[in-house]
Amino acid sequence: MLFHVHMTVNIPLDLDKIYVDELKAREKNLSQELQRQGKWTHIWRIAGKYANISIFNVASAGELHDLLLSLPLFPFMEIEVTALCQHGSSVKNEEEAH
Amino acid sequence: MLFHVHMTVNIPLDLDKIYVDELKAREKNLSQELQRQGKWTHIWRIAGKYANISIFNVASAGELHDLLLSLPLFPFMEIEVTALCQHGSSVKNEEEAH
Amino acid sequence: MLFHVHMTVNIPLDLDKIYVDELKAREKNLSQELQRQGKWTHIWRIAGKYANISIFNVASAGELHDLLLSLPLFPFMEIEVTALCQHGSSVKNEEEAH
Amino acid sequence: MLFHVHMTVNIPLDLDKIYVDELKAREKNLSQELQRQGKWTHIWRIAGKYANISIFNVASAGELHDLLLSLPLFPFMEIEVTALCQHGSSVKNEEEAH
Amino acid sequence: MLFHVHMTVNIPLDLDKIYVDELKAREKNLSQELQRQGKWTHIWRIAGKYANISIFNVASAGELHDLLLSLPLFPFMEIEVTALCQHGSSVKNEEEAH
Amino acid sequence: MLFHVHMTVNIPLDLDKIYVDELKAREKNLSQELQRQGKWTHIWRIAGKYANISIFNVASAGELHDLLLSLPLFPFMEIEVTALCQHGSSVKNEEEAH
Amino acid sequence: MLFHVHMTVNIPLDLDKIYVDELKAREKNLSQELQRQGKWTHIWRIAGKYANISIFNVASAGELHDLLLSLPLFPFMEIEVTALCQHGSSVKNEEEAH
Amino acid sequence: MLFHVHMTVNIPLDLDKIYVDELKAREKNLSQELQRQGKWTHIWRIAGKYANISIFNVASAGELHDLLLSLPLFPFMEIEVTALCQHGSSVKNEEEAH
Amino acid sequence: MLFHVHMTVNIPLDLDKIYVDELKAREKNLSQELQRQGKWTHIWRIAGKYANISIFNVASAGELHDLLLSLPLFPFMEIEVTALCQHGSSVKNEEEAH
Amino acid sequence: MLFHVHMTVNIPLDLDKIYVDELKAREKNLSQELQRQGKWTHIWRIAGKYANISIFNVASAGELHDLLLSLPLFPFMEIEVTALCQHGSSVKNEEEAH
Repeated sequence: MLFHVHMTVNIPLDLDKIYVDELKAREKNLSQELQRQGKWTHIWRIAGKYANISIFNVASAGELHDLLLSLPLFPFMEIEVTALCQHGSSVKNEEEAH
Repeated sequence: MLFHVHMTVNIPLDLDKIYVDELKAREKNLSQELQRQGKWTHIWRIAGKYANISIFNVASAGELHDLLLSLPLFPFMEIEVTALCQHGSSVKNEEEAH
Repeated sequence: MLFHVHMTVNIPLDLDKIYVDELKAREKNLSQELQRQGKWTHIWRIAGKYANISIFNVASAGELHDLLLSLPLFPFMEIEVTALCQHGSSVKNEEEAH
Repeated sequence: MLFHVHMTVNIPLDLDKIYVDELKAREKNLSQELQRQGKWTHIWRIAGKYANISIFNVASAGELHDLLLSLPLFPFMEIEVTALCQHGSSVKNEEEAH
Repeated sequence: MLFHVHMTVNIPLDLDKIYVDELKAREKNLSQELQRQGKWTHIWRIAGKYANISIFNVASAGELHDLLLSLPLFPFMEIEVTALCQHGSSVKNEEEAH
Repeated sequence: MLFHVHMTVNIPLDLDKIYVDELKAREKNLSQELQRQGKWTHIWRIAGKYANISIFNVASAGELHDLLLSLPLFPFMEIEVTALCQHGSSVKNEEEAH
Repeated sequence: MLFHVHMTVNIPLDLDKIYVDELKAREKNLSQELQRQGKWTHIWRIAGKYANISIFNVASAGELHDLLLSLPLFPFMEIEVTALCQHGSSVKNEEEAH
Repeated sequence: MLFHVHMTVNIPLDLDKIYVDELKAREKNLSQELQRQGKWTHIWRIAGKYANISIFNVASAGELHDLLLSLPLFPFMEIEVTALCQHGSSVKNEEEAH
Repeated sequence: MLFHVHMTVNIPLDLDKIYVDELKAREKNLSQELQRQGKWTHIWRIAGKYANISIFNVASAGELHDLLLSLPLFPFMEIEVTALCQHGSSVKNEEEAH
Repeated sequence: MLFHVHMTVNIPLDLDKIYVDELKAREKNLSQELQRQGKWTHIWRIAGKYANISIFNVASAGELHDLLLSLPLFPFMEIEVTALCQHGSSVKNEEEAH
């Protein structure tokens, strides 16, 4: 199942900088691990914003939910999830079997 | 340059069906041609809507604009364009040199 | 996979009444058939509106999309789809295996 | 009477963790008790959000209001209530007598 | 059950004037009949708009829905329904038994 | 003059509980006094929200403004005011002479 | 009573030009008559839009409503009404006795 | 040049009361001085809100900007500015030469 | 005076093509004439939309209004006007004397 | 590549004034340096708001993103980015070669 996920990050400015940097490092590691597993297939930076657009390829909405909640930066995120599916014009089989 | 493009299609219900089907066929051909050229790198259907989310990889906003205006269904579309760029966590070099 | 689908129907007032009634009858039959198959698990009327909130239990977003597009009233609908999943507090196994 | 209730939870990040966990535990117990009583007929998690969509079957809006205000997490919730009623196409008698 | 109903009326300007006046007359009669029955307890005009705010006192959302759909001007209305209940500070028993 | 007033209350969670309860008590007394004077003709609770919809019958917008500002909970309120007037279909003379 | 009224005019492009010009002329006459009577105290053009912001000084919301409905262009208008009152800092007695 | 300025004031509740009252007094003085100079031609209170609608008659947007920034309450304000101009129906020459 | 003007063009699809092309040609001529006069200092295409963002340098809002209304495509435009002024950080004197 | 960037600045009122002034000074220096380099081609103040509209001429969205993130006031900004391109009516070659 493919999901389009728009994540906007708002970290309170008065949080301890070292703690925040540590969170960001853990976030990057987890994200890259999930990318290598093929679950997090794309992540793009939105120009000018502390936000990204990502594509997830997972077994179900439940798995997506658990992955997103496991992100270290989840508590600081506004997340919009859109369910995607194969487009009749796509030349790729985007919905790789899971 | 990477662009996230959200296209919602509203074709008036009273348009001649044969004309509309012909438009849709030309739209599909052009889209697939641009996908094969690597300009239109992804197109996903938004579940439940006559709309898609696409990723374009083009030289400039000008080229994107011309491509979108050349789509047979452009007159019936609401389009939102978002400029994307490489995310620090991405394990892929998404911004393939154009 | 569970989906929450909010459908608002806007049928042009100048459409032929017999044609519209026939569409509505076909819509009701298809909806009830899908309910009996267990795909369309709930449909509620929103008080005061020509709109409903429904719950679908289908294999994927792709199947949901095809079902919604097959509805006779689809061309007259505004549809919002929200991906749902099992809630930790639910006493029911809502995500019946499909 | 059937109500569709959309609850979004925003717990301040600086609240004491033990206190919050205790609130969440009491919330889960009360929710499950109300589900067993048949008042809180469905609760689904919205994928990617600390939010749920629920269906309540209660005697009146007054009873709904009192139930929602009794939830331990009510002070941290944004709640949208929509009055539902039996849909002409539903194959179930959703408005079970209260 | 008390409902707050906000009705905005948009009658196409090209509709036959006699037909529209006849609809408005039937609307007024039905409204006044429901007011005398105590179901439609208040109707106020919103200054400057072809819209009203009304309070209904009915047995259920289902009854409200049927009443609203029976209004001759329903096809031309945008309707927002809000479920109300007794306020702790009210000196009146607003939720008169139905 | 009739006004429709929608009041949503947001009391910061970290305010002293005793102070808040005292504010609420003064709010209730003042509201009930104004109701007995016939200025605050209706107050309904919006199901599921710490908000109310009220109808005021006062001499002018100026008097309404002063009344609302005198409410102990005014500093914690978002208020929307809509000017109402007699509806042609109303069987009651809602705009009692002030 | 002072009212701030924001009027946006949308005249269908396919309406007969002579009829529209005639409507506009009648609109201008009525507006200027009401200005001379002191009911329509200000009318400003919003730069770049077929819209105006006006101030009315009338006895009640009912009178405002009747005046606005009497405007030849009313059927083509979106109107927002805001109730105003004397500001504590104003050096003028804006709420001239009516 | 005429400008319509909508100012909404949100003063944090935990600010020192004496400091706030002192700010409000300076605000009133400055406002009244600018009114006497003919730059701030109108200020009305929006009924029910800590907000006002004002009309400024100044040489340029730059002058308006400097005036607004000089207001003691500016840091607590949300401001919407709309450029106005003479309306063809106005019986007054609103754009007094500056 | 500098104005930021956002113009979105919606030309009905059923308008005669020759008439529309003629309108567009006149629009382009007038725009370029105003650019050469230094009144229309910038016009950029918004990528993916039949819309532009322009900067005007004119004597007053009145002059801006008259210019915009004189555009052949004005009847098909949604226009948002924002008053600009010199920014303290700008290295250019943007507000050239008019 | 041309980008239209709308920046709204919200600096918490309780931040140390000296620190804030120092940030603003660094912001001004960096902005002016980028303007002299031709990357930040325009910056206008929005009348009445602590916000600006700017035009950037950079090699890519990536470069824009890095520039914006390097602004000392970035953490206090809401930023909207719109991709621009050459307009067919522009008499200038706005997209100077980068």
